[in-house]
Amino acid sequence: MIGGGRGAFIGAVHRIAAAMDGEIDLVCGAFSSDSERSRLSGQDLYLPPERVYGSFEEMILQEKALPEDTRMDFVAIVTPNHVHFPPAKLALENGFHVVCDKPLAFNLEEAKALAKLVEETGLLFALTHNYTGYPMVKEAREMVRNGAIGKIRKVVVEYPQGWLSTLLEASGQKQAAWRTDPKRSGAAGAMGDIGTHAENLAEYITGLKITELCADLSAMVEGRLLDDDGNILLRFDNGAKGILFASQIANGEENDLNIRIYGETGGLQWHQMEPNTLVHKTNEGTRLLRTGVGEQSEAAKAHIRIPAGHPEGYLEAFANIYRNFARAVRARLEGKEPGPFDMDFPTVHDGVRGMAFIDAVVASSKSDQKWWPVD
Amino acid sequence: MIGGGRGAFIGAVHRIAAAMDGEIDLVCGAFSSDSERSRLSGQDLYLPPERVYGSFEEMILQEKALPEDTRMDFVAIVTPNHVHFPPAKLALENGFHVVCDKPLAFNLEEAKALAKLVEETGLLFALTHNYTGYPMVKEAREMVRNGAIGKIRKVVVEYPQGWLSTLLEASGQKQAAWRTDPKRSGAAGAMGDIGTHAENLAEYITGLKITELCADLSAMVEGRLLDDDGNILLRFDNGAKGILFASQIANGEENDLNIRIYGETGGLQWHQMEPNTLVHKTNEGTRLLRTGVGEQSEAAKAHIRIPAGHPEGYLEAFANIYRNFARAVRARLEGKEPGPFDMDFPTVHDGVRGMAFIDAVVASSKSDQKWWPVD
Amino acid sequence: MIGGGRGAFIGAVHRIAAAMDGEIDLVCGAFSSDSERSRLSGQDLYLPPERVYGSFEEMILQEKALPEDTRMDFVAIVTPNHVHFPPAKLALENGFHVVCDKPLAFNLEEAKALAKLVEETGLLFALTHNYTGYPMVKEAREMVRNGAIGKIRKVVVEYPQGWLSTLLEASGQKQAAWRTDPKRSGAAGAMGDIGTHAENLAEYITGLKITELCADLSAMVEGRLLDDDGNILLRFDNGAKGILFASQIANGEENDLNIRIYGETGGLQWHQMEPNTLVHKTNEGTRLLRTGVGEQSEAAKAHIRIPAGHPEGYLEAFANIYRNFARAVRARLEGKEPGPFDMDFPTVHDGVRGMAFIDAVVASSKSDQKWWPVD
Amino acid sequence: MIGGGRGAFIGAVHRIAAAMDGEIDLVCGAFSSDSERSRLSGQDLYLPPERVYGSFEEMILQEKALPEDTRMDFVAIVTPNHVHFPPAKLALENGFHVVCDKPLAFNLEEAKALAKLVEETGLLFALTHNYTGYPMVKEAREMVRNGAIGKIRKVVVEYPQGWLSTLLEASGQKQAAWRTDPKRSGAAGAMGDIGTHAENLAEYITGLKITELCADLSAMVEGRLLDDDGNILLRFDNGAKGILFASQIANGEENDLNIRIYGETGGLQWHQMEPNTLVHKTNEGTRLLRTGVGEQSEAAKAHIRIPAGHPEGYLEAFANIYRNFARAVRARLEGKEPGPFDMDFPTVHDGVRGMAFIDAVVASSKSDQKWWPVD
Repeated sequence: MIGGGRGAFIGAVHRIAAAMDGEIDLVCGAFSSDSERSRLSGQDLYLPPERVYGSFEEMILQEKALPEDTRMDFVAIVTPNHVHFPPAKLALENGFHVVCDKPLAFNLEEAKALAKLVEETGLLFALTHNYTGYPMVKEAREMVRNGAIGKIRKVVVEYPQGWLSTLLEASGQKQAAWRTDPKRSGAAGAMGDIGTHAENLAEYITGLKITELCADLSAMVEGRLLDDDGNILLRFDNGAKGILFASQIANGEENDLNIRIYGETGGLQWHQMEPNTLVHKTNEGTRLLRTGVGEQSEAAKAHIRIPAGHPEGYLEAFANIYRNFARAVRARLEGKEPGPFDMDFPTVHDGVRGMAFIDAVVASSKSDQKWWPVD
Repeated sequence: MIGGGRGAFIGAVHRIAAAMDGEIDLVCGAFSSDSERSRLSGQDLYLPPERVYGSFEEMILQEKALPEDTRMDFVAIVTPNHVHFPPAKLALENGFHVVCDKPLAFNLEEAKALAKLVEETGLLFALTHNYTGYPMVKEAREMVRNGAIGKIRKVVVEYPQGWLSTLLEASGQKQAAWRTDPKRSGAAGAMGDIGTHAENLAEYITGLKITELCADLSAMVEGRLLDDDGNILLRFDNGAKGILFASQIANGEENDLNIRIYGETGGLQWHQMEPNTLVHKTNEGTRLLRTGVGEQSEAAKAHIRIPAGHPEGYLEAFANIYRNFARAVRARLEGKEPGPFDMDFPTVHDGVRGMAFIDAVVASSKSDQKWWPVD
Repeated sequence: MIGGGRGAFIGAVHRIAAAMDGEIDLVCGAFSSDSERSRLSGQDLYLPPERVYGSFEEMILQEKALPEDTRMDFVAIVTPNHVHFPPAKLALENGFHVVCDKPLAFNLEEAKALAKLVEETGLLFALTHNYTGYPMVKEAREMVRNGAIGKIRKVVVEYPQGWLSTLLEASGQKQAAWRTDPKRSGAAGAMGDIGTHAENLAEYITGLKITELCADLSAMVEGRLLDDDGNILLRFDNGAKGILFASQIANGEENDLNIRIYGETGGLQWHQMEPNTLVHKTNEGTRLLRTGVGEQSEAAKAHIRIPAGHPEGYLEAFANIYRNFARAVRARLEGKEPGPFDMDFPTVHDGVRGMAFIDAVVASSKSDQKWWPVD
Repeated sequence: MIGGGRGAFIGAVHRIAAAMDGEIDLVCGAFSSDSERSRLSGQDLYLPPERVYGSFEEMILQEKALPEDTRMDFVAIVTPNHVHFPPAKLALENGFHVVCDKPLAFNLEEAKALAKLVEETGLLFALTHNYTGYPMVKEAREMVRNGAIGKIRKVVVEYPQGWLSTLLEASGQKQAAWRTDPKRSGAAGAMGDIGTHAENLAEYITGLKITELCADLSAMVEGRLLDDDGNILLRFDNGAKGILFASQIANGEENDLNIRIYGETGGLQWHQMEPNTLVHKTNEGTRLLRTGVGEQSEAAKAHIRIPAGHPEGYLEAFANIYRNFARAVRARLEGKEPGPFDMDFPTVHDGVRGMAFIDAVVASSKSDQKWWPVD
């Protein structure tokens, strides 16, 4: 693991997600660019001191030198955005598969370079757009594919949070500080952090691509350097229209990722904060599809751990990304074909798409031109 | 009553709303442009035959000729949009107060002419943007006024319906037929029918004005002549941003008017389909404000009929518009000052505002210019 | 109308419910046993002074003396429980149909006497167990009848309120005072006031009869003279088991009447505070049946006024009882057969059943015997 | 681990719960009484063959013989009820701490014997009443302790499931088979399996004890040997009254554990299927307390892993039991004091209490005596 030392948030999430199914062991780490902090973090995690490194370069090179049955099987990168590209590149160049937090990189150029490298090396690369790991998101995608709601006409996807309603970064809060800093976060704030999740979710479920958009970004909190709110009109490649909004100044909202999709014959709604329910509406009535209840797609069933009514949450969805990836890596190591859902995780290509989305949003927001292409 | 004969929808709603509080009696009507149909409708309603008229002209003129204590006190216009202006104008010119269904008129020009006439005559004019009659909408407005959520930053208002997901007008269904016909509905379809409710609700609660917008209207159903779906970016006069969407092809949605308002210190959410709950969120927690529970504004309490937990619905909200208007008319007749909430009903000016909104939306949607003014 | 003067609650509800559909006009009243209060109440309601009476005896006898086309068509009794029997008896004896608030009478003996009188006179008698007027309650009953959930095994019905969590009656609050007074309310407090609604709803929807029960009543608030809380085990005539509880000390609850019914092949849930949704669950999935959406029974459709998504509430349900009764009375007056749903209102027999339930509950609660018959 | 081989349900839950926080490693197992099945299960879990045993006796004795730094630190027992006592006893006698699934034993006698042994040996013993691991359950308990709702008057706790609506055991389904078999499950079916969870949750949050009860158990499905449904009246040691029901024939219900607690000044509601919300109601209004939002007790915060709005579910709650237990074991091993919440897990005494509850329920249900003591 690279990053995720003491005080970090997403590193712990990755560790729990990786540990949950007993298929992945944390064997080494470069948890901080501060080597003492890295060492202490490794100790917290019961790692042998010799596998705790002071930098990602050190880790990648020294692990590579270890015997095959000892060294790490893949790298997980959980650093801020500006430190995604360098370790990912180095890991790929040294033959390691990679799991990387989103967004993929600091800018589109880096993203495309990584995609190229992944293709050249043939290595596996997972991007943790974790919301696609929920069983009911899988079910929604299968339903769309099977025509359950007909041709899609409208998509409304939103991701409101309220935690940046004040200038929290001024207090030195670590999560706020890097996310609102253009040098570490990139060209976008909320749109990069959570807008890309919304974009990814919409494209994952619908199978459509956003072709054009019209964005209005704001930094609502005085003194903030990046957008903390954005409203976007969308147009999709099949003629569907839509709305995407992301906000970190939606006071009182927690993590309210929500998607509604309307087709010619029905609609679907999924809400991350009640993730075990998928609402299927038609003009004839409403059905609540619940994780594990009744007939469900193989894709959904493969991502459920416990019987219906025992709520599975964010960590289980995240763990589904890791578990699939781990099985794909294992299949690769054992020279076998991966199982039917082992390759169902977001890839470097989703990452490139996300960076293109950020680019288009930022450009559109600055422009008087109504529609801006995404590509 | 003008319009609202057999087969109509909104006429019956107006009658129930007017009857509910025992303050208004239906005394006469011109229920249809077909005089036989008008006669039969009057019979259904137990009206004396001599007060059932074959046309609105006949009604207004003959009622005017009746003794003051016999003739109607005001006119209610419940016809399709293109028949709002002529009877409203005639009624005002003959000294009758008016209740008119929304949108106010067929176009902005008519709307402005009516507003001028109302000012000149000094008569009372209510427009039935009925959703503002809900107690929890009143409460929301009072909370905003009292600073409960601080300066407003973001407004998301939406009104999805699904009933026009197919070319229903081709079947001759009466409600669909006139609403999708530019000759009877005006320049907009869904935006005129329900988008104006969303616009009115947002401005009513926030006290803000939409200054600019960027719209993308669609006729998603092949063969439809007016928009059945629209997505709009909003900018308000205090710097707040927002989203408004209205749809009649949101398959499976009933009448899902919903508004979220985020300010510097909190957020509010109100949902028409569960109208007795107002959600007040801050980063410290969520409160559910319920009709009639705990301390509430005088404005809310004045519009509640029964104790908490007995759900009050659409008809009661509609009746609140009528009751306030009736009391204002009665005060006028008795030469008294109206009570503190008697003038709390939407007016001709809200109607002008709605027509200006429709004009801007339609123009914006056809334009490549990103922002379009509303005025 | 008898009772329902200034300061009363349920009288106003009856008036709104009766007025809503334009089929009933309030023509006279004895609104209070205090004749001055009665007079003032009549004035509030725009009644001619000569039709406002100082006592129910006066009203019934004088109205009877009026010409047939002038005098009232039926009597509505909205007094506290101990003043149900005398006016109901007198009205029936003088040939008037009756609407009476619940519970039917002060005790079972009175109830049976009224039932006998109704049978002897052949007059119409409605008891306002208003919750059975909701469209989704009708739908639930039809579904049970049609076998949608199979043979019923379990019923859980509950009616929690919180408004009597303190000794409110000591403050002189009028509603609390008579409801907690054995001289005016009868043998039971909460069980008579709201427990009977729960009992009636359960038997109405299921078509089953409670045969035995085991009750534990409490007066949780010190100094209270009647039960404010009760928990009851139920057994039904088809072998089903159940639970009924009613409480007026469930702090924070409004009017939370809720019923769940489980059969061999499915379950139903209906909740008064969101009355337009009926939940139909099976082990294969959950459907939300919504007022006016999709295919529905004729019984439900006959009790809906407005299109789906415009919430209909308590007053509309109450008005359904009145409207059916009014149509039944009109049919009788016109010598016609009543329409298919005109006789769908609770009768004097439901009232007798409710009083038998109260008797059994009170007896059971005092007894060490586990099961107590209801009959 | 003892039990939990291929085809088992709860074993996998225990393994995930134990693995999640990286504090526990699975080192050995006797996964089945069938030694081949045990061996294959161990292989699935990547265990070294020599640590996979053919019986629990073998495992306990051979592990004991291993060096202290190699052998297991505690035993987890995840077998059907009739195989709780023998391995628990043997483990305790051989100096191992124990985690045991609920109910504690086959009968009260066994339960008391285990409690005695725990006291004599001073070893740690956790019973996986996992629902008490949810953060909002901790918060509810703290609120009750702090007087947030005043003296408790009423408790309604329920646990409906629908999965045994048919004679599933006849199909050989493994989970159904042992749970409905008196030889493996004990004197109670649904009441032992899930009724004890409800009982435990009610006593855990309220801090009260059930002193008397009145039960009505049924085997609603023809041919079933144990109760699949039960309704119970409760009386508590502070004078509060209550209701408990558990059902496995509540068709369409998943795992709907729900508790409502009403005190003199407020009420609390918690629902397992939406476990991150705790509803706090008073007659002044309703607050939704959400995992991780706003000020919360230390007890709640200590059991949260991720920021608000990322739903934590059943596995995280289960893992909280394991994590606390693991920390308590570690403190013991290291000779330190356990941390402030390390001892917050259900113990053998909760288990004895559960068995006493089962005994009283079964006896009450067979009796004509109204009230039956629990002790």
